[in-house]
Amino acid sequence: MAKNLNMVYLIDTYAPVLTDKQREVLELYYYDDLSLAEIAQNSGISRQGVRDSIKRGETTMLEMEDRLGLARRMRALGQQLEAIRSNTQEIVIANETYTYSNEIKRATQNIFSALERIEND
Amino acid sequence: MAKNLNMVYLIDTYAPVLTDKQREVLELYYYDDLSLAEIAQNSGISRQGVRDSIKRGETTMLEMEDRLGLARRMRALGQQLEAIRSNTQEIVIANETYTYSNEIKRATQNIFSALERIEND
Repeated sequence: MAKNLNMVYLIDTYAPVLTDKQREVLELYYYDDLSLAEIAQNSGISRQGVRDSIKRGETTMLEMEDRLGLARRMRALGQQLEAIRSNTQEIVIANETYTYSNEIKRATQNIFSALERIEND
Repeated sequence: MAKNLNMVYLIDTYAPVLTDKQREVLELYYYDDLSLAEIAQNSGISRQGVRDSIKRGETTMLEMEDRLGLARRMRALGQQLEAIRSNTQEIVIANETYTYSNEIKRATQNIFSALERIEND
């Protein structure tokens, strides 16, 4: 079975709703890039058991994504936050180069703080 | 049963994972503020049936929130985006009042566009 790398985003989002076994096997398969045989060997489950566990976890996550669309939204959000960050950086540079306003400096610092709080949540 | 207004945030987030009946009843109860008796009358279900449906839907949403924490994160995200918006507005005012940089003007417009895309998603 070919690895679907979009699964990494789904695991990032939905890992908390998987069973412990599904989560463990999916992380070894997608994050650590182990083969089915390697996971079977390390975990003492049969190769077919590993495969079934991955399939069941994937199905759960795809159904959740189909309903909530959360992984897609998180990715879109990340892109917009990156746009806010780079535009704020441009304001900092323009403010330091052409003009110098303390209000603008303070406001850009507040925006960077807000972006940091979003990322750390 | 006392209405828990935090449920409104949970319904906003998790409505897609409820059954049609649970969603309908929860929306009438929390969004439209109908009583159990009124919902029973309108929907042709018994008052006890309405109550059970609300309880089951609430339990599903609370379990999801306990695992994913999505409603809490969305609320925190909204607060930080509001901080970004008001600080960007301050940059616009400072740029128009004290200084005038086209780079800063363009960057603030890009930030507002990014905020709008996040909100409309």
